Amino acid sequence: MSDIKPVSQTHVITASCPSQPGTVDVVTRFLFEQGFYINEIHSFDDTDQDRFFIRIEFRADTATNFNRDDFCQQFGERASEFEMKWELASSPYKSKVVIMVSKHDHCLNDLLYRYRTGDLNIEIPAIISNHPDLEDLAKWHDIPYYHLPITKETKPEQEAKVFQIIQDSEADLVVLARYMQVLSSDMCKKLSGKAINIHHSLLPGFKGARPYYQAYDRGIKLVGATAHYVSDDLDEGPIISQGVETVDHSYYPQDLAAKGRDIECLTLARAVRCHIEHRIFLHGKKSVVFAK
Amino acid sequence: MSDIKPVSQTHVITASCPSQPGTVDVVTRFLFEQGFYINEIHSFDDTDQDRFFIRIEFRADTATNFNRDDFCQQFGERASEFEMKWELASSPYKSKVVIMVSKHDHCLNDLLYRYRTGDLNIEIPAIISNHPDLEDLAKWHDIPYYHLPITKETKPEQEAKVFQIIQDSEADLVVLARYMQVLSSDMCKKLSGKAINIHHSLLPGFKGARPYYQAYDRGIKLVGATAHYVSDDLDEGPIISQGVETVDHSYYPQDLAAKGRDIECLTLARAVRCHIEHRIFLHGKKSVVFAK
Amino acid sequence: MSDIKPVSQTHVITASCPSQPGTVDVVTRFLFEQGFYINEIHSFDDTDQDRFFIRIEFRADTATNFNRDDFCQQFGERASEFEMKWELASSPYKSKVVIMVSKHDHCLNDLLYRYRTGDLNIEIPAIISNHPDLEDLAKWHDIPYYHLPITKETKPEQEAKVFQIIQDSEADLVVLARYMQVLSSDMCKKLSGKAINIHHSLLPGFKGARPYYQAYDRGIKLVGATAHYVSDDLDEGPIISQGVETVDHSYYPQDLAAKGRDIECLTLARAVRCHIEHRIFLHGKKSVVFAK
Amino acid sequence: MSDIKPVSQTHVITASCPSQPGTVDVVTRFLFEQGFYINEIHSFDDTDQDRFFIRIEFRADTATNFNRDDFCQQFGERASEFEMKWELASSPYKSKVVIMVSKHDHCLNDLLYRYRTGDLNIEIPAIISNHPDLEDLAKWHDIPYYHLPITKETKPEQEAKVFQIIQDSEADLVVLARYMQVLSSDMCKKLSGKAINIHHSLLPGFKGARPYYQAYDRGIKLVGATAHYVSDDLDEGPIISQGVETVDHSYYPQDLAAKGRDIECLTLARAVRCHIEHRIFLHGKKSVVFAK
Repeated sequence: MSDIKPVSQTHVITASCPSQPGTVDVVTRFLFEQGFYINEIHSFDDTDQDRFFIRIEFRADTATNFNRDDFCQQFGERASEFEMKWELASSPYKSKVVIMVSKHDHCLNDLLYRYRTGDLNIEIPAIISNHPDLEDLAKWHDIPYYHLPITKETKPEQEAKVFQIIQDSEADLVVLARYMQVLSSDMCKKLSGKAINIHHSLLPGFKGARPYYQAYDRGIKLVGATAHYVSDDLDEGPIISQGVETVDHSYYPQDLAAKGRDIECLTLARAVRCHIEHRIFLHGKKSVVFAK
Repeated sequence: MSDIKPVSQTHVITASCPSQPGTVDVVTRFLFEQGFYINEIHSFDDTDQDRFFIRIEFRADTATNFNRDDFCQQFGERASEFEMKWELASSPYKSKVVIMVSKHDHCLNDLLYRYRTGDLNIEIPAIISNHPDLEDLAKWHDIPYYHLPITKETKPEQEAKVFQIIQDSEADLVVLARYMQVLSSDMCKKLSGKAINIHHSLLPGFKGARPYYQAYDRGIKLVGATAHYVSDDLDEGPIISQGVETVDHSYYPQDLAAKGRDIECLTLARAVRCHIEHRIFLHGKKSVVFAK
Repeated sequence: MSDIKPVSQTHVITASCPSQPGTVDVVTRFLFEQGFYINEIHSFDDTDQDRFFIRIEFRADTATNFNRDDFCQQFGERASEFEMKWELASSPYKSKVVIMVSKHDHCLNDLLYRYRTGDLNIEIPAIISNHPDLEDLAKWHDIPYYHLPITKETKPEQEAKVFQIIQDSEADLVVLARYMQVLSSDMCKKLSGKAINIHHSLLPGFKGARPYYQAYDRGIKLVGATAHYVSDDLDEGPIISQGVETVDHSYYPQDLAAKGRDIECLTLARAVRCHIEHRIFLHGKKSVVFAK
Repeated sequence: MSDIKPVSQTHVITASCPSQPGTVDVVTRFLFEQGFYINEIHSFDDTDQDRFFIRIEFRADTATNFNRDDFCQQFGERASEFEMKWELASSPYKSKVVIMVSKHDHCLNDLLYRYRTGDLNIEIPAIISNHPDLEDLAKWHDIPYYHLPITKETKPEQEAKVFQIIQDSEADLVVLARYMQVLSSDMCKKLSGKAINIHHSLLPGFKGARPYYQAYDRGIKLVGATAHYVSDDLDEGPIISQGVETVDHSYYPQDLAAKGRDIECLTLARAVRCHIEHRIFLHGKKSVVFAK
């Protein structure tokens, strides 16, 4: 049995297409014919929207030499008959994640810990902030820190710089780790499906500003956070993960914020992990997440 | 020590008043002077609203004979100096709970189980429904079932009958256990602080009709329920308890509803328990809940 | 697209075998060749034990007429090359569940509710108890109730009767819903993989008798329950699901038991649902559960 | 009302004594007579052990000047009549917490974050480790790092040094944040009620070494952590807090450990917070925790 033990390189193929017979077969047969071993397979068929989603982790047998170009060309031909949108990701690869942050550093600190210990298999080519406060933290991790303050007047110009940094660093993902500026509609479109925001409420409750104060005024008994893809429509992007904890009347807004910090960290980290492990599909205004 | 062992009769005093020095002392000193033993004491001081809340469970020493009238008169004099609103409840007493329901019977079934096993220390003098479907369930528990169908035209008249039943049964509490009719503004006012509704979403998200469908469309990753006091403003009454469970993309509205049923039962039962154990204070648009 | 909409009959195939290349392909290719449509596919490869597990929900295209015998014969031939253990289940089918219970009726009541509302797609051909107490509850649901009291002397004889009832009712599953008798080793073996027990602690903590008292003495801050397959080794069978809630110092054993009742109901119902939906594989002393 | 707004200095009095009438009154009357304002009061009466516990947060009116010595002398006289064990803590005071750690740094990192942001109101006079690995992390926070490697032979001598550091730093609390050495019986006694350990399982399940491996072998569906006071009896000290998350068959020991890290951090931080806020009473082999 030793010949099928995991080897270092594993791959993930994700694919979606209109529902029709043969959608699983076209992928699994190809992998078998090419001599790959399937570690895990998970599919979902949305019977409302007639759309099919599949995620497969697989690996080569030791003898096989993986040729990415050949794979993509050959599989692409078969997939096109199904109008399949698909992607292939191969490990070991560290996703490049640009983090944007303002003054609250709990999510940043949490992501940096997971980065430096390898809990999240990522590189962080840049941290961008509209405030100078968190430069020391970035420095201690040897990560470039870009301080780009934003006023109403400078917003277009500064956002252009932000986008330039994202492009230059070839970011796979942008994480808004409590970045308290609303991105322009244009920026949202450019980053569609590539930017995750953490909102400190259980959306759709308490959209917009100061959600912990809104939650306090409403007298909620559960406080939560929501990680979602950024979209043009504020706090309306596809939800990836949500977290929650019990509270009571004795929680003032600052107490909700304190409890919320832990929830935000965990909820955002889970979303980032799902993204870099290619577990998420955008699906209209929603997401399909094959979570571990 | 055997003289301080619990005896059958315990009492709960709940009180609230504007914050000022001496608010605890006025209650605890009185109880001490009267020879009572305090089982549990819990207070909260709202520093935003400058309002004080206290709940004390106490019991008489065995030798003492409890005289309710004397207690109320004497404590009332002291309490009035603090503009205190207060109540005294003595066990064993079974709260009288009128349940209103439409066709979905999961919450009713759950409450009936807790009623017949004594898990909830209540009587149920009446079950009221705008549908005939659940009469058998009521009958098996020997509880009168009032079928009061409601149309636009008959609403005022039928609501009057509902209120008459509530009054005749001397209900301490009305529970809307998935009663799918909106109560009139007048009815809401009459039942203020005495009626608990279960809403099948995490308020303030998904107010109004068909919350599981709303939740499905939004692609939420947590589904929940909210028990709250009925108020004139639909789904805006003071929240008592909230419950939640994890879901994913594979949950269609009927799956959310199925998972939600369990959450609704638990969340509503918890709210009813807190109410009958005198653990809840209305506090403007919010509630103070000294939950166990 | 209407031709691929769900039709009434769906099937679930579950299979496991030693890990080797082609394990997914042998199933998915067969289904494709036979003209089936895959609703959902989920696999797991245990790299410690080199064993592969797969569960597929599929349906026929409307035109196809499903022939179970042909399916089993043809697929069986291919599967045998992989030493595959497999099963095919077709809906609509109501699993036959025999419930065993003593005096505590919360789990029984919960299962009966899910049975009569169709939340669990089961039949209950028999309720067996060593006490007479719950006969009324069974009667109201029109389910035969077998009162088989057990003493040390009568145990073998009464257990034989129990097993006879299970066999006569062609039970797919036996649920020990707080049945407080230890089954004999022989009985455990006969019911292996077919009997689920609910234990009122978070196993492996507090095995054996009176777990809520044990938990109280230990001063735990979380109380829980465990649903597991019955095995010869008491409270050591493969775990299926576990549930938990927060408690504190003020919970006496009876309070833990009260809170525990809700956890037991939910944890057991989840396990039963997974079993009848063919989501569970026995895997040595553990279980593989493709939970929804 | 402005005269009763919170001022900077608040106090917490905690007391326990044998149950008897007047236990609440002796504290609340004194506080009233001295002109203090009670922010929050919470009590518990253990009817099994006949022991009473109370925790009161209070503040002086602005005009009053707090004299600690006077308070202690006067209250002490009254308390002695009840055989009361009591403590008075006044804010602002930063508890001095010595952290002990081996190589796993997740709990240390989490505590350091809460320390440097003020989320935990503590000082950290020393970090002690039997390994050199985490010195950089300590240095970045300007905290002295003591590397005291331990072998079987050097254990008594090194433990003496550890204890000296604890004494020299006048530590209020010692936190074993994944310190993988078993403390000697003598050391446990010296630190009784002053040292908190985080164990990476839901005690009493999986005591001792490699709990994540034990949990994997048992096939658990919930993974957890337990913070408890250190006692002479390994992993048997009074439990303070426990945390838990859902897992399934696909979690290998390293996956359990990864998920467990987040639970350990939160569970330990909660325990430390309760300790420094004087919310915990040792009560034989258990703890009474008036958690927020």
